[in-house]
Amino acid sequence: MPISPTRNDALAVQLDNAINNKTKPLGSLGVLEALAKQLGLIQNTRAISISKPAILVFAADHGVVAEGISAYPQDVTWQMVENFLAGGAAINVFAAQNSCDLRVIDAGVNHDFGPRSGLTDRKLAHGTHNFAQQPAMSSELCDTALATGMALVAELEGNVVGFGEMGIGNTTAAAALMHKLTGIPVAQCVGAGTGLSAEGILHKQHVIEAAVAKHVHATEAHDVLATFGGLEIAMMAGAMLKAAELRKVLLIDGFIVTSALLVAARMQPAILDYCVFAHCSNENGHQQMLEALNAKPLLNLGLRLGEGTGCALALPLLHAAANFLNQMATFESAQVSEKSE
Amino acid sequence: MPISPTRNDALAVQLDNAINNKTKPLGSLGVLEALAKQLGLIQNTRAISISKPAILVFAADHGVVAEGISAYPQDVTWQMVENFLAGGAAINVFAAQNSCDLRVIDAGVNHDFGPRSGLTDRKLAHGTHNFAQQPAMSSELCDTALATGMALVAELEGNVVGFGEMGIGNTTAAAALMHKLTGIPVAQCVGAGTGLSAEGILHKQHVIEAAVAKHVHATEAHDVLATFGGLEIAMMAGAMLKAAELRKVLLIDGFIVTSALLVAARMQPAILDYCVFAHCSNENGHQQMLEALNAKPLLNLGLRLGEGTGCALALPLLHAAANFLNQMATFESAQVSEKSE
Repeated sequence: MPISPTRNDALAVQLDNAINNKTKPLGSLGVLEALAKQLGLIQNTRAISISKPAILVFAADHGVVAEGISAYPQDVTWQMVENFLAGGAAINVFAAQNSCDLRVIDAGVNHDFGPRSGLTDRKLAHGTHNFAQQPAMSSELCDTALATGMALVAELEGNVVGFGEMGIGNTTAAAALMHKLTGIPVAQCVGAGTGLSAEGILHKQHVIEAAVAKHVHATEAHDVLATFGGLEIAMMAGAMLKAAELRKVLLIDGFIVTSALLVAARMQPAILDYCVFAHCSNENGHQQMLEALNAKPLLNLGLRLGEGTGCALALPLLHAAANFLNQMATFESAQVSEKSE
Repeated sequence: MPISPTRNDALAVQLDNAINNKTKPLGSLGVLEALAKQLGLIQNTRAISISKPAILVFAADHGVVAEGISAYPQDVTWQMVENFLAGGAAINVFAAQNSCDLRVIDAGVNHDFGPRSGLTDRKLAHGTHNFAQQPAMSSELCDTALATGMALVAELEGNVVGFGEMGIGNTTAAAALMHKLTGIPVAQCVGAGTGLSAEGILHKQHVIEAAVAKHVHATEAHDVLATFGGLEIAMMAGAMLKAAELRKVLLIDGFIVTSALLVAARMQPAILDYCVFAHCSNENGHQQMLEALNAKPLLNLGLRLGEGTGCALALPLLHAAANFLNQMATFESAQVSEKSE
């Protein structure tokens, strides 16, 4: 289904008026004003709401870890999924603090969890292939991942969806996607991930450059995703497309989540109308990736953790945007004098 | 009473270890890690807590409005105090959203409210004198304002105090304080306030420059405060000094609140150890004022509203810092593998 742009000139004027009549100097709530307007346009109403926000954390493994591109062993992916299920990770803490539902999805972790309460099992493979050798996944598997993500979001009740991820090696996949979809040199797309040394980053760059040279024919978004992506990234891209189609607010986290959005935005550019960018990550390529999307992130806290932590931390600002528009008095209702010059 | 620096090398090492053992890449929570450490040093414990946070909003009027330096009439000060009491202002909305107590203090509004539920009456005068003509207040009145602020904080139960203000004309007072205490040229200290035109800003600059030339002997912090300050600014400075003495966390809002801190920091430099800078305001001089204090604000949302709104919006980040340190699993407790290189 196509995603509709949110543009609505009549509603935009109504929202501007409602925002400007609140008891505050014009424009003095800064980006919260722009955010309130965006939420109104997404929800197609002046009475914006944040209802049952949820963060979906997609986990999967990456064959490219065989090239030695991560500071942590692959087992950390499933171990961190266990940590999510036990409530001990940063995303658990921040989601709980901000009354946000958390859903952990196994999109393709290289580990058998067995049936587990709290884990949404959508495992499509035990990780991707090593894209240094062959495409990460087949075109069909990529389609299945996209469709699976769409189906997950179709079941969600809430009107705000945050996206998070876990997958050792996935900054390498995301950097490759960034390079292929924006044309920005690989050297500017790679970063420390979970904590590589300068030497490790250079090796990661060379692995990506060699793979890009090998898979030279992958240029269209779907092919690029199948060739370099991960199952969590593909499933997220599908989930994002469905969320925008259903006019939900998409809360975009850091480097890997934004790479999934890059793919989705190539497929349906109108998706960007629905995106709120939670933060600018400290991962090297994220700022340029955001700029490529003309995105202005809400927070800049030097985070580089993933998991959707930036989404959870930005959620109070969405509430603030909705609350000031819904709850503040107007100059008229409060009998406050207006500007005199 | 002198304010003690928070430095404690043994505790700092314990906090670093506790932060670094959490299940996340080293440093990946960015400024939240520095914040958690600061909170621990302020509270002198590894078990940090955010207990009964309160925002104190100090309101007062400024004689210098007679010079035509504000876009809004002076009556807006008391009208906005009424709006605070009725719950219709931005600070009401954001404080309620983030479960923060709000206390509105009449430090010197040019209006008789009468006994009013919800208003803390500490009125010391019906506004200050016009500092273009004479010192804003006497040295004795300034002392009384400082002592009154100290007494207010001595009564507070919570361990986090946010500061906010309301006072038509107070960006002019704050710009004068900034110039006198930092030496930064007046032209770089003045801004649009509630919404002056470029011409209005230039006029404001000239008013301050003339006043500075007139009161050339005011150089010491207390004299500068009495000469150019406001009753809300002086009362805030006293409240800040007491809050730090009591080892509470000080949450610093925008341009005017930071100008009160500039004064307090000249009196007792160790106060800065206790300050968390909520945000960088869009008011022209704020960024340089923060730099003069070597302060790194948490948020940068283009706010320029005052009232303590930045404090309320930053409060969830303080909770996040406390919560990750208190609640996240360690690599050991979660049995997650550590970095392999």
